[in-house]
Amino acid sequence: MNQDMSRTWIVNAALPVHYQVRVVDGLLDPNNRTLLEAGATQRSGTIRRLVVIDALVDRLYGVQLRHYFQHHGVKYQILALPISETDKTMESVFSVVKAINEFGIARRHEPIIAIGGGVLMDIVGLAASLYRRSTPYVRVPTTLIGLVDAGVGAKTGVNHSSHKNRLGTYFPAKDTLLDRSFLRTLDTRHIVNGLAEILKIALIKDRTLFELLERYGTTLIEERFQGRTPESDQAAKQVIDRAITGMLEELELNLWEHKLERVVDYGHTFSPTVEMLALPELLHGEAVNIDMALTTVISAQRGLINLEERDRIFSLMRKLDLPVYHRLCEPTVLEEALADTVRHRDGLQRLPLAIGIGAACFVNDVQPSELREAISTLRELDSDSQLTLEAAHA
Amino acid sequence: MNQDMSRTWIVNAALPVHYQVRVVDGLLDPNNRTLLEAGATQRSGTIRRLVVIDALVDRLYGVQLRHYFQHHGVKYQILALPISETDKTMESVFSVVKAINEFGIARRHEPIIAIGGGVLMDIVGLAASLYRRSTPYVRVPTTLIGLVDAGVGAKTGVNHSSHKNRLGTYFPAKDTLLDRSFLRTLDTRHIVNGLAEILKIALIKDRTLFELLERYGTTLIEERFQGRTPESDQAAKQVIDRAITGMLEELELNLWEHKLERVVDYGHTFSPTVEMLALPELLHGEAVNIDMALTTVISAQRGLINLEERDRIFSLMRKLDLPVYHRLCEPTVLEEALADTVRHRDGLQRLPLAIGIGAACFVNDVQPSELREAISTLRELDSDSQLTLEAAHA
Ligand SMILES: NC(=O)c1ccc[n+]([C@@H]2O[C@H](COP(=O)([O-])OP(=O)(O)OC[C@H]3O[C@@H](n4cnc5c(N)ncnc54)[C@H](O)[C@@H]3O)[C@@H](O)[C@H]2O)c1
Ligand SMILES: NC(=O)c1ccc[n+]([C@@H]2O[C@H](COP(=O)([O-])OP(=O)(O)OC[C@H]3O[C@@H](n4cnc5c(N)ncnc54)[C@H](O)[C@@H]3O)[C@@H](O)[C@H]2O)c1
Repeated sequence: MNQDMSRTWIVNAALPVHYQVRVVDGLLDPNNRTLLEAGATQRSGTIRRLVVIDALVDRLYGVQLRHYFQHHGVKYQILALPISETDKTMESVFSVVKAINEFGIARRHEPIIAIGGGVLMDIVGLAASLYRRSTPYVRVPTTLIGLVDAGVGAKTGVNHSSHKNRLGTYFPAKDTLLDRSFLRTLDTRHIVNGLAEILKIALIKDRTLFELLERYGTTLIEERFQGRTPESDQAAKQVIDRAITGMLEELELNLWEHKLERVVDYGHTFSPTVEMLALPELLHGEAVNIDMALTTVISAQRGLINLEERDRIFSLMRKLDLPVYHRLCEPTVLEEALADTVRHRDGLQRLPLAIGIGAACFVNDVQPSELREAISTLRELDSDSQLTLEAAHA
Repeated sequence: MNQDMSRTWIVNAALPVHYQVRVVDGLLDPNNRTLLEAGATQRSGTIRRLVVIDALVDRLYGVQLRHYFQHHGVKYQILALPISETDKTMESVFSVVKAINEFGIARRHEPIIAIGGGVLMDIVGLAASLYRRSTPYVRVPTTLIGLVDAGVGAKTGVNHSSHKNRLGTYFPAKDTLLDRSFLRTLDTRHIVNGLAEILKIALIKDRTLFELLERYGTTLIEERFQGRTPESDQAAKQVIDRAITGMLEELELNLWEHKLERVVDYGHTFSPTVEMLALPELLHGEAVNIDMALTTVISAQRGLINLEERDRIFSLMRKLDLPVYHRLCEPTVLEEALADTVRHRDGLQRLPLAIGIGAACFVNDVQPSELREAISTLRELDSDSQLTLEAAHA
């Protein structure tokens, strides 16, 4: 702190942030102590844990979870929250706060454990962040979006006044434990939804990942990443690995998003508005994919990718059963969506566009006319694919 | 980021935080451009500002404020919030969020301006912190607590489920502008309230400040820090300066309170519970002073300060018209208050105690019996002072 003559105090500080994300097989196996020890700086004595879990996940894994804690003599409390995108509100955050108040955790060494998908983790993360201005927590993602995206970054948040993630913080879990066996009960649509975020990483920075998706995408969906053969098991591991590595490479350098040009924002320019307006019809990844399809067309219009690459991308999207169009893709809606994102990105579009497959750039000059042209091409490509689908099913 | 063989990703990052606090005279004088430029990285074009102001302050200074902005051609919106400790809620945060949504600020270069006391600044700070996961803001404190404490640190927060500051973040304003002329309209009780936090700094680390308060305290209250003579003006400046310098020296090294032994927590061990239970009867500084009186007695019991120093402290508290006792000072209430603070301080009391006048230490072993003894001494000292007061008024 410096104090000069005209009485100005300058405060300089830096908040160090360290966290880890690790693959752990058999997380709920009583012989595995990882969940017990994660994020804790335990002194002696009884282990106490507050668990906040997605109510659906609780129905599927709650017995195993309780058995795990009982086996280890843990004093636990489990709060099962009903979860959907429309429950991603401050009200849900307040329920978590109430549970923390009632359970009465020791602030620094009894981490809250969050078990569920992106919605559950975003809610618990925000509650933990706000509670006494920060309380440690541990994440156990149970969806594919959770494993490769929501569970590995620093962002928390809830929707507010019909804006997606309008309120939130940057507050990563001390420890995130990735066990892909949870995906065995996830429905196909949510597996596909997660593949959209993986496809994003592929498109902007990892051509090998793109090729893995082309080759194994269908199998991964069918097997829900459970690897029924050594080859598909290897593919499942590799796809998750590469997606996380790609994501974290980008995040680590820009954890608080001070740099507003973020390649991981690919597919996240128009989608927040479309997702919120379509709620609950479109899932996050589906909205993201529609945005990626639209921007792929814009890239092609600008000659940043050639038509062959464009069609290869659309054909992978189709193979993964990801939607490329929605009736909300109207010029007025998308122009307003872009305007809101421009406000979020401090006055410039900073729109990530794919260059070929596996690289990206940023532009600030997308015009309404260009957007309209892209929308109508997108419609054609979509109806072509509908026809192809019908032909295939005929 | 390191990735080892067993697939663990370690993320290391640091959030740099820089902010300034400065003394600015004549803040609302149209010739002074400080308020216009504070916290902004303005490009060209019209200046737009959303101002959130304490409704009472708006009644007193709103005309001047509007004239200031009009003079400079600023496009502004003013949200006047009714303010009291009971309005320090998430509901108030949501009103600020609504105003930001409606005004539609450009995220990084149109800082929100918060004008008011600690309550208003804590609310706006939390709203700014949560809005799109962080939006810059500027603080203009208008109370003494605001000038020397709430306006200079990093904490934001609101009360929740009858717990003081239960939800909050660390998110300092980019710029805090200190103009003590606002104090001219502040009522005596709130001046005295601010003196409690100044006394705290004096007791734990600044004997000179203690002596300044002994010498000028009464005058500062009478003149509301407006310095009607060169000597009292100098005293007002010095007292505020030393209080802020003392405070920031402590804060800068521990902005996120990772170290749980904080001397600035002096007076803040029992007071959060007492303040919330007594709401709205006791002001923050009054509750803090009662806590300081109690811990002064504990220090004396332990021989950390002698009886002469103890009485000198009590006599200054009396001179400043600060309460030293409240009927909630019951063993059961204070034991529960201590237990809650122990949870906040991760399982240990970490109770700051004064050593003489101007130094402090921490203890972890205060016993219920010791607390009961201190309470009964405190009662005696309080009734002595009541008698003294009555004698004086007779
Ligand atoms: N914080 C971040 O960085 C970040 C990143 C990406 C996405 N997100 C957020 O994540 C959310 C999307 O996350 P999501 O796709 O995980 O959705 P989700 O959390 O809503 O989960 C999807 C559905 O699957 C169910 N479910 C969860 N695990 C299951 C399992 N193992 N078996 C069966 N069913 C299960 C849930 O109950 C829910 O119905 C969005 O709100 C998005 O904004 C956040
Ligand atoms: N964030 C921090 O680091 C920090 C530090 C200390 C205190 N606080 C918080 O600050 C709050 C106390 O702040 P406070 O004492 O400023 O109280 P306050 O904000 O309630 O203001 C006190 C009263 O004075 C009125 N007022 C404000 N400015 C005035 C002016 N210039 N003229 C006339 N009236 C005016 C207000 O309307 C209010 O009625 C507590 O909630 C406390 O928790 C926060």
